[in-house]
Amino acid sequence: MKKLAISIGDINGVGLEIALRAHEKISKICKPVYCINKTMLEWGSAMLSIDIPKNFKTKECGEVFEIKPGVNTKEAGEFSYDSFITAIALAKSKQVCGIVTLPINKASWALAGIKYKGHTDALADLLGCETVMMLGCEDMYIILYTHHISIREISSHVEAKKIYKFLINIYDYIESDNIAVLALNPHAGDDGVIGNEDIEIEKAIKKANKKLKKDIFKGPLVPDTAFSEQNRKNFKYFVCMYHDQGLIPLKALHFFDSINVTLNKSIIRTSVDHGTAFDKAYNDSELSLLSYINAVKKAVE
Amino acid sequence: MKKLAISIGDINGVGLEIALRAHEKISKICKPVYCINKTMLEWGSAMLSIDIPKNFKTKECGEVFEIKPGVNTKEAGEFSYDSFITAIALAKSKQVCGIVTLPINKASWALAGIKYKGHTDALADLLGCETVMMLGCEDMYIILYTHHISIREISSHVEAKKIYKFLINIYDYIESDNIAVLALNPHAGDDGVIGNEDIEIEKAIKKANKKLKKDIFKGPLVPDTAFSEQNRKNFKYFVCMYHDQGLIPLKALHFFDSINVTLNKSIIRTSVDHGTAFDKAYNDSELSLLSYINAVKKAVE
Repeated sequence: MKKLAISIGDINGVGLEIALRAHEKISKICKPVYCINKTMLEWGSAMLSIDIPKNFKTKECGEVFEIKPGVNTKEAGEFSYDSFITAIALAKSKQVCGIVTLPINKASWALAGIKYKGHTDALADLLGCETVMMLGCEDMYIILYTHHISIREISSHVEAKKIYKFLINIYDYIESDNIAVLALNPHAGDDGVIGNEDIEIEKAIKKANKKLKKDIFKGPLVPDTAFSEQNRKNFKYFVCMYHDQGLIPLKALHFFDSINVTLNKSIIRTSVDHGTAFDKAYNDSELSLLSYINAVKKAVE
Repeated sequence: MKKLAISIGDINGVGLEIALRAHEKISKICKPVYCINKTMLEWGSAMLSIDIPKNFKTKECGEVFEIKPGVNTKEAGEFSYDSFITAIALAKSKQVCGIVTLPINKASWALAGIKYKGHTDALADLLGCETVMMLGCEDMYIILYTHHISIREISSHVEAKKIYKFLINIYDYIESDNIAVLALNPHAGDDGVIGNEDIEIEKAIKKANKKLKKDIFKGPLVPDTAFSEQNRKNFKYFVCMYHDQGLIPLKALHFFDSINVTLNKSIIRTSVDHGTAFDKAYNDSELSLLSYINAVKKAVE
């Protein structure tokens, strides 16, 4: 069975509880190594009133400090970062096949002076390679061309040359010869009547297909009909020009079962597709484990 | 039973077929008056091999010309416009209670020299009043703050004063004291980290609620979770900052049953939520009538 490193995420959030509750299930498909020190593990599990499973293998990391459910603290920010880089180190040294990350909190990272906006940004920098955010589940995956930028900034990134490079890059990771690429503007720009960015996207698609000698990329698709039931039968992979273009339909259709995959040339990394859920930390026995379990499955695969 | 005027839309598209096929059903809930001249009706129904129902009441309008299925023509553009303004005239003179429009084709309108981008724009100008686009079905309605503009242009419209006016205006039409208002940027701007437009939206919401002396408007909601199943239980009405923010989830969830309602102070107008479907014109016996029937129901209501 494959070994996977699990980073615990923000210990003031729901990460540890998810790890403990899902352990029995995921142990059937992988050998997890949890990046957390024993003291914090014991403390957290006591607060949750959950026994630590016997074969709960850990990799020591981080400091010992007070857990404050649902609160942003510098210590929790530091700890979640330690857990994350410990997992990366295990993967880089091939002690594990890949990593699965539980949610960190950006505000806690900021308190701890960590400059990254999130896991994906951090990975790109730490691994020194380009990373691509893909989110979804077996029914549909969305691939984000731009991530955490404001709506105002998007159009300046929509340029044929850059999109062409992006498409060629992602084709290496996606085992499909049928990938949808969404237009930027309403009605795909209505032939230039509503913005001219979609002409750039069209150029990029044509050039990429020519390079790959096959019509891999289809589009630019009219965004509002791209995720209709009929179209979801035609496509599994959707390249989206911006965060909410992809995340809105994904969360409308697959709120609980979606995961996050970081496509990159260095290590396998998957993640849950939700945040630290501070409102549910240490007080909700009905937490959904689905996204985490799916993330583990995808990493194993 | 209430009288409704039905504009036939682009006769080279699916409008006439929908009107003929749905007639029996809608006759049970209203008295429809179809805005089409007898010659074109006879010709079209012959091409469709559908008998004209006996009580198919028409209002003469438009020229006589050749029907070319699935083709943009100047004549079809002119005809659909004639049918539309005839329906409006019937409503303005109170001969009918409201109008239901079948889809026109923008390119055909352009060929005919008609300057409007679509029904909603035309209505605003012809009626000389502000119009608001609302789309959806009994499960959820989206209300568009901006319509057919490029992504690049959206943020310049996101201004507290204008949004405040918009919110106060729509509250007159919507029978709900619980209306969601979406943020513009990913994660609702993450406290100004990703753009500062969402601060404007928040100001507008606060001011509108203060004016109405009740917390009617909730938000700004993080866009990507706004349409999750859980959140759709909390809200039926969603104010969206831009076209695809609302249309993408709506068409992902309700492709066939959605309708379009033009909120305005002058006449009742509902519409199907799809286009002319040129690829299906005069050749598809499995056309979905659901959007049209729902549009008629809503107009009657």
